Amino acid sequence: MTSAETGGTRLDPWLESYAARAHAMRASEIRALFAVASRPEVVSLAGGMPYIGGLPLEELGEMMRRIVVEQGEVALQYGSGQGYEPLREHIVQVMALEGITAHPDDVVVTTGSQQALDLVTKIFIDPGDVIVAEAPSYVGALGVFRAHEADVVHVAMDADGLVPAELERTLARLKAEGRRVKFLYTVPNFHNPGGVTLSLERRPQVLGICERYGVLVLEDNPYGLLGFDSDPLPALRSMSPEGVIYLGSFSKTFAPGFRVGWAVAPHAVREKLVLASESAILCPSHASQLAITAYLDHHDWQGQIKKFREQYRERRDAMVSALEEMIPEASWNVPDGGFYVWLKLPEGLNSKSMLPRAVTARVAYVPGTAFYFDGQGADHIRLSYCYPTPERIREGVRRLAGVVDQELETVRIFGADAGGGGDTVEFPSPDLA
Amino acid sequence: MTSAETGGTRLDPWLESYAARAHAMRASEIRALFAVASRPEVVSLAGGMPYIGGLPLEELGEMMRRIVVEQGEVALQYGSGQGYEPLREHIVQVMALEGITAHPDDVVVTTGSQQALDLVTKIFIDPGDVIVAEAPSYVGALGVFRAHEADVVHVAMDADGLVPAELERTLARLKAEGRRVKFLYTVPNFHNPGGVTLSLERRPQVLGICERYGVLVLEDNPYGLLGFDSDPLPALRSMSPEGVIYLGSFSKTFAPGFRVGWAVAPHAVREKLVLASESAILCPSHASQLAITAYLDHHDWQGQIKKFREQYRERRDAMVSALEEMIPEASWNVPDGGFYVWLKLPEGLNSKSMLPRAVTARVAYVPGTAFYFDGQGADHIRLSYCYPTPERIREGVRRLAGVVDQELETVRIFGADAGGGGDTVEFPSPDLA
Repeated sequence: MTSAETGGTRLDPWLESYAARAHAMRASEIRALFAVASRPEVVSLAGGMPYIGGLPLEELGEMMRRIVVEQGEVALQYGSGQGYEPLREHIVQVMALEGITAHPDDVVVTTGSQQALDLVTKIFIDPGDVIVAEAPSYVGALGVFRAHEADVVHVAMDADGLVPAELERTLARLKAEGRRVKFLYTVPNFHNPGGVTLSLERRPQVLGICERYGVLVLEDNPYGLLGFDSDPLPALRSMSPEGVIYLGSFSKTFAPGFRVGWAVAPHAVREKLVLASESAILCPSHASQLAITAYLDHHDWQGQIKKFREQYRERRDAMVSALEEMIPEASWNVPDGGFYVWLKLPEGLNSKSMLPRAVTARVAYVPGTAFYFDGQGADHIRLSYCYPTPERIREGVRRLAGVVDQELETVRIFGADAGGGGDTVEFPSPDLA
Repeated sequence: MTSAETGGTRLDPWLESYAARAHAMRASEIRALFAVASRPEVVSLAGGMPYIGGLPLEELGEMMRRIVVEQGEVALQYGSGQGYEPLREHIVQVMALEGITAHPDDVVVTTGSQQALDLVTKIFIDPGDVIVAEAPSYVGALGVFRAHEADVVHVAMDADGLVPAELERTLARLKAEGRRVKFLYTVPNFHNPGGVTLSLERRPQVLGICERYGVLVLEDNPYGLLGFDSDPLPALRSMSPEGVIYLGSFSKTFAPGFRVGWAVAPHAVREKLVLASESAILCPSHASQLAITAYLDHHDWQGQIKKFREQYRERRDAMVSALEEMIPEASWNVPDGGFYVWLKLPEGLNSKSMLPRAVTARVAYVPGTAFYFDGQGADHIRLSYCYPTPERIREGVRRLAGVVDQELETVRIFGADAGGGGDTVEFPSPDLA
C-alpha cells in the first residue's frame, strides 16, 4: 500500500534509518498553532521579529546596486570560511562598544548567530554532556542543545540576572555527581525571554565561579546595544578573553534578512569553529557580508540603533501600560532593553493550554514551557513588543486580558488547569526566535 | 605561563572539553599551502570557483536595488525555516528539466547545498554508521561525513560512473558484516572530482540495488545542467521519489555568493530536515532567496546557463589539448560537463608530496588523497578548468608539466616517491569545493 493509498497518514519508509538525535526532532503542536497565528487578523505578541520598517530602504537599495555593479565578482563568488576580512574588522569595532578587545582573526562570521550556537555546541557536546543555562533560556538555544543530545540544567535568575550563589551551588552539585559540564550558556543583556540584565557587580562573580569549575562561558548577546536608558555594560568577554566565547548578530541592530552573525572565541576554539563552519556551509554568503560591510562603512549605523532604541522603548511602554491597565492580576518585569516581557500568569492558569483559546481570540504569545528544558514554565508567557505598533500591542493585550478573564472564571468554577507543561518546543522556529 | 609567553605555540585551555567529533577537526597541511596558492602569480587549477565574470552585473545590481526598495520589509526580515515559497515554486520548475516531479512543499532551501549535505548527515548518521560513496568522492561531502563520525566505504567508478556490480558486492559484504549502511552518496552528473557521468542504463540498476538493500540514495547534483553536448539525463530522483534525497544548487548555474541550495526529500524526511535547519540557522537568508527568485523571474537564466556551458567547454578544451601536448605521459578522462579533469600521474609520482613543488612553480591542484576517506588517491590529481581563462589554463598546465618532468627525473634517479597519502583533507575548504 503506497502512502497515497493510506490517505492522509504518510508512512515514513526511512523511520528505521534515522540517527538517535533525529528521533527528538518532532514538530510540536505549538508550531501548528503558530501557522494559524501568522494570519494578519491575529495580533502576534509571540515572534521575535525586529521592527525594520524604519530602515532607509531607498538608500539601502542603492547600496546593494553598487555592491553588485562595482564588486560583483567578489560579492557573487565563494568566500573564506572564516568570513570576509573587512567585515571582521568592522565587527571588532562594534564589539569595542561593549569593552571587548579582539583581533579580526579571532572572529568567525556565521549565518546568523544561531549558526554560531550550533557550531559551538557541535564542537563541545557529546551526548549526555551538561550545559548550564538560565531559567528560562532562549528557545532556539535549547533546540540546538537538544539536537546535540545535551542535558540542560537551569539556574535561577532574579531582577539582576543569573544568581551567582545558585550557579555555584549547581556546579558544585553537578561536580559531586560526576557530570561533565561543558559550558554556561547565558544571555547577559535584556534576556530572552526573561527581559533582565546581569548586573555589573555580578559579571566578575559569574566568571570567577566558572573559572574555578573549569567551565567555559558562552555569552550570547544579540540585544546588548538595544538598551533604552543607558550605555551597554562591559561584555563578559571583555573581562575574560580566554574563558568566554562571545556571540553577536546584526539581526537586531540592522536586519535579520542577511543572516549575518559572528562568534569570537579563544584562538584554538576559533580554529575548530572555522573548520566546523566550512563543513556545514563552506562559507557564509559573500553578498550578505559585503552588504553589512557597506552598511557599516557608509551609513550612520549607530544613529539607526538609536532610532531602534527609541522605537522599542515606545513599544515597551505601550505594552507595560496596557498590562497595568488590563491584566493587573498578572505580574511581570519591566525590561530596560531588548524585545520581551516575561509575564507570570495569575494563579491556576496554564500558559500552554490557554494558547489555543488565545489564538481563537486572535492574539498569540509563546508559552513559558518553550523556554525550559524540563517542562517548567506553564505559569509564564513571553510577550514580544518588538514588531507590532503600539496600537496593535494595546489591542493584543486587550484580547489577552479577555482570555485571561475567561480562564480565571473557568478556574473559579472547575479548579486550576493542570494540563500542558512538559511538551516543550523541540526546535526553534523563526516565528519564536 | 600564558599563551603569549610561550611565544608561538598557543596552548588550548579547552582541549579537554571538546566533543569526540571535534578531535578530528584539524586544519590539514594542504590548507596552509592553499593560502600561498591564492596569490595572483599562482595559476590555480585547484579551486572549484565558478566563472561568474560573464554575469550581467549592471542588470543584477538594478535587480537587487529593486528588491530592497520594493520588497525590503520582506527581504530584510526573518523568513520561513523551509524557505521562501515563491523560490520553492521556481525550484520545482528547475528540477523539471531533469525529469523530476515534485511539489514546492517537498523542497527545503538551504545555505548552499553544502548545508543540505550537513543536515541529511546529521539526521541519519550515528557514529560508526556506514555511508557508501564513489571512489573518489567530493571532498566537502567527505568532510561532513567525517564530522558526523561516519565510516565511508568507497565503490569503484568507470567511464560510465558508479559500477553497479561493485555496488552490489559492497552492500552484500557490508550486510554480511552486520554494518549499518545509511545511504549511498553519489554525484551522478559530471562527477567531482571524477568528471564522469552515470549512464542512463545504470541509473535504474543502481536504484534497484539500493532498494533491495534498504539503502537511501543521496543524489548530489550541482553540475547537472552544465553538460557540454547534450540535454541532462533524468535524475535518480525522477525514477524513485521515495528512495532518493536530491540536492541542488544555484552556485554553479548562477552564483555561489548568495549561498542558495536545496534538498528535495520524501515527506517525513523533509520535515526533519526543516527542523534540523531551523536548529542550525533559524532560516536561510531572505535577501538571498528573493534575489534568486527575482533572477529566475526576470532574467533569461536558461540562456545564461547556455553561455556558461559554452565558456566551460572552451576551458575544458584548453585544458585537454594542453595536457595532450605537454603531459602526454599522464592519463585523464575528457569530461562532458562540469568543472574537473581527474588525472592519473605517471607511475611513481605522488600527488601529495609533489604539491609544495608545484606551488613553488606557481601552479596549484588538489591532490587525489583529498577525495578518499582511506588514504587512496596519491596517484591522482584534480585539475579544475572552471575559473582561469584558457590562456591561464595553458600556462598552468605548462608549469605543471615542468614539475612532472622534474619529478620523473627524481624518480629515475632515486626511485618512486612513497611519501604522502593517508593525510587526507579533513574538512572542505571553499578553495577546494
